[in-house]
Amino acid sequence: MGGANLRSVDLNADLGEGYGRWRMGDDEALLDVVTTANIACGFHAGDPLIMRRTVAMAVARGVAVGAHPGLNDLWGFGRRQLSGERPDELATMVVYQVGALRAIAAGEGAGVGHVKLHGVLSNAAAVDPELAGAIAAALRRLDPELRWLVPTGSAMVAAAAEAGLTVVAEAFCDRAYAAGGDLLPRSHPQALLTDPQAIAANAVAMVTSGAVTAITGQRLPRPVQSLCVHGDTPDAVAAARAVRDGLLEAGISVAPF
Amino acid sequence: MGGANLRSVDLNADLGEGYGRWRMGDDEALLDVVTTANIACGFHAGDPLIMRRTVAMAVARGVAVGAHPGLNDLWGFGRRQLSGERPDELATMVVYQVGALRAIAAGEGAGVGHVKLHGVLSNAAAVDPELAGAIAAALRRLDPELRWLVPTGSAMVAAAAEAGLTVVAEAFCDRAYAAGGDLLPRSHPQALLTDPQAIAANAVAMVTSGAVTAITGQRLPRPVQSLCVHGDTPDAVAAARAVRDGLLEAGISVAPF
Amino acid sequence: MGGANLRSVDLNADLGEGYGRWRMGDDEALLDVVTTANIACGFHAGDPLIMRRTVAMAVARGVAVGAHPGLNDLWGFGRRQLSGERPDELATMVVYQVGALRAIAAGEGAGVGHVKLHGVLSNAAAVDPELAGAIAAALRRLDPELRWLVPTGSAMVAAAAEAGLTVVAEAFCDRAYAAGGDLLPRSHPQALLTDPQAIAANAVAMVTSGAVTAITGQRLPRPVQSLCVHGDTPDAVAAARAVRDGLLEAGISVAPF
Amino acid sequence: MGGANLRSVDLNADLGEGYGRWRMGDDEALLDVVTTANIACGFHAGDPLIMRRTVAMAVARGVAVGAHPGLNDLWGFGRRQLSGERPDELATMVVYQVGALRAIAAGEGAGVGHVKLHGVLSNAAAVDPELAGAIAAALRRLDPELRWLVPTGSAMVAAAAEAGLTVVAEAFCDRAYAAGGDLLPRSHPQALLTDPQAIAANAVAMVTSGAVTAITGQRLPRPVQSLCVHGDTPDAVAAARAVRDGLLEAGISVAPF
Repeated sequence: MGGANLRSVDLNADLGEGYGRWRMGDDEALLDVVTTANIACGFHAGDPLIMRRTVAMAVARGVAVGAHPGLNDLWGFGRRQLSGERPDELATMVVYQVGALRAIAAGEGAGVGHVKLHGVLSNAAAVDPELAGAIAAALRRLDPELRWLVPTGSAMVAAAAEAGLTVVAEAFCDRAYAAGGDLLPRSHPQALLTDPQAIAANAVAMVTSGAVTAITGQRLPRPVQSLCVHGDTPDAVAAARAVRDGLLEAGISVAPF
Repeated sequence: MGGANLRSVDLNADLGEGYGRWRMGDDEALLDVVTTANIACGFHAGDPLIMRRTVAMAVARGVAVGAHPGLNDLWGFGRRQLSGERPDELATMVVYQVGALRAIAAGEGAGVGHVKLHGVLSNAAAVDPELAGAIAAALRRLDPELRWLVPTGSAMVAAAAEAGLTVVAEAFCDRAYAAGGDLLPRSHPQALLTDPQAIAANAVAMVTSGAVTAITGQRLPRPVQSLCVHGDTPDAVAAARAVRDGLLEAGISVAPF
Repeated sequence: MGGANLRSVDLNADLGEGYGRWRMGDDEALLDVVTTANIACGFHAGDPLIMRRTVAMAVARGVAVGAHPGLNDLWGFGRRQLSGERPDELATMVVYQVGALRAIAAGEGAGVGHVKLHGVLSNAAAVDPELAGAIAAALRRLDPELRWLVPTGSAMVAAAAEAGLTVVAEAFCDRAYAAGGDLLPRSHPQALLTDPQAIAANAVAMVTSGAVTAITGQRLPRPVQSLCVHGDTPDAVAAARAVRDGLLEAGISVAPF
Repeated sequence: MGGANLRSVDLNADLGEGYGRWRMGDDEALLDVVTTANIACGFHAGDPLIMRRTVAMAVARGVAVGAHPGLNDLWGFGRRQLSGERPDELATMVVYQVGALRAIAAGEGAGVGHVKLHGVLSNAAAVDPELAGAIAAALRRLDPELRWLVPTGSAMVAAAAEAGLTVVAEAFCDRAYAAGGDLLPRSHPQALLTDPQAIAANAVAMVTSGAVTAITGQRLPRPVQSLCVHGDTPDAVAAARAVRDGLLEAGISVAPF
């Protein structure tokens, strides 16, 4: 059983997703649970003051800091499907946001170690090798040490390899996977797991088995280096805590990648 | 008179001040005149694609690249008076924008060598030592090599000295100065010079004498290391060209600071 | 004491102050307390979908619907001081927002019976007769039946009278008044009452006496036709309920103006 | 040939498509050419001050005023494809904008007689009967006298008929049509006509024949009650003037619908 002690996984969450006077989710509670923070950068959510405050809170807890860039669509929270931009244009929008966070984080004595795309920008890059390649190349050029936190099994993995950018593979323990390994769309009745114990058990199974299980029951081997948890409702925070507790009880350490 | 041959001054312009489909001024024409470009960073104007294009155009002409951050007020173009933010909050907004441009510029092989504040943010820092100090300290922390392009004689000069940040003193050859050395407000009937030859003569006089002349006739000794020119109208571009030609004819070289 | 039975006051709240995915306050809880809703119109907060939903919720409860226009500054929530616009320009911004809500409300079978300005736009009109006059005249032109919900004793009262626009005088039972009758600024340590019972007692005293009491103890006779309550925190909703209960217990009916 | 004298067509243009300090196109020049103005309402472009000024300029020239609502995407100018909103949500966004313009126009003594959708919102409604139906019903509810200026032959025609809303059929004399009667996408090399005389001849042919001619040469009978002209370049304004002159020379009167 010694192997269990060697097992480790990262817990990440999307944070700082307010704007001006508005807030979304309980960032402080989540920062006590996760090991990695993906911080919104002002396009789909976030603003310089929220970014700075969120970085400072992460630093104070030893949580790793990364950028969570999205489309420039505050009203749609980066979840409306957009089209019309070329891959290099979207990559330029990503670079802008990562650069902004790097400067803010530097003021708090922190570095930006990774990037995780938000919303439809992530969905698009997950299935579009050209877009994934343009973003990977732009991130590599900006900072070859950056790691790209990407959906496990997505087109972003190969694109990053080609660009020489290191990826970290992320799985979602509160979402159901379709037969092909994609996430079931949120509109599907079984898309979301809500029971904290079921979510925690799913997390342990993913890390232990190195696979995600599709809704068909099929086991899809996939690297799982980080698990995403949410904080937009009190139930979500409770589930995040259950995931952390469940991993620790299973002898899996929780640590930044 | 050999001394005249040694004299040199920088010409700077605010560029990339469009947004989305909108454009402001003739950036390409100005880039053939100036030696330094202050590039809008997305808050009062500018967006990642315009920033990238403007940086690329500047690089192609050997024009130096700097940031031109403003207040987050697109509709008001950063010219509506704002209040309510503390100095460190405004400094954080500046840092965000400079960081964003640094990342964009790096992708074009360029560095960001200086910062020039826009609109009411500049007006406020010019007379508020606490705000000027907060911004100077934040820029120094971000990059000690940054130079701060500031209105000659403003409160920003002392604030920068205290923060250990190098300033470059800017004068406006198409604006009239009040007795105390401030710019006459734009609403004053004599605030703006419009005749290209008069503007050019003013530019030469400023550099030659190391002083600005107030509307009262008083000569106010002031360092003049850079002159600001504009491109928002065809007449403005003509005036910018006249300034450059006039300086060269007077034996003053035009070169980046 | 029979007179008490004849007394009546309106309770109003600012509602629909979310944007896109963001929400502010518990609108549904407040709609069960108040008799009049001031609905944000998309400039400082609010968007067409939130406006429609808020109107529908108000209509379902028999709560009167009005517009709550603010400055076009989402990030600053209409609370940053802005300057530079002329009174007629600000009046045009108000007209835009009121017209938008009229069209949305018509789709839900409701009319827009009143207007209450938001944030610094209200603060400015309260002390600037020219601005108050421009807005009053514009509202009168748009719909002579509109009523203007204004701070009791403000410059808006006289401006409305001159324009032939009916006002409704509003007092704040959870805010302290300065000697001259203005609200103490929020930054003052005694500016805000937070104890629900104290707020409720203040509300009853205001309506019963037809006066506000300054922090100096001075009694300032002022008409009080509507009381503003808030819903941005659970405590605020509790205070709003306490105000309603206190008024009813004191024999004051709560009804739209 | 007396019949020719009876023929009449409307010329419409999209106007007021600036924002804050930015402008797009030469509105004043176009207002001297067209008989109908479609005025941007603040979502893809336009703001209250520009709307008011544009209405006033139209009224001064006897040009009919209508609304030109778009998606809430300033950066994308309403031309990025968006998804995720339901038809009734998009209809609510249209209603908001039309209501805002109605209030602004009333202040200038003008009514809003029609609505023309902008950009991808128009493209979507042209082929989606459910979206077209939701918008038609919402406009009918807002004002049964409104006319809907729609691409001739689009799904909006039937949707309007079902909703009891009057349409005006619009054709584009500077765009090429595909075999099926849709506009060729702008990316097609032959999509745009640029020669003013060719555009004018096309306009006359459309009105005279009551048909559009596809790029295949096929003649597609289609009602043509209004022709759209543009003003975003000096050449476009010249083409608009050529269209007007060509129509008048052909004995076709130019008048609002």
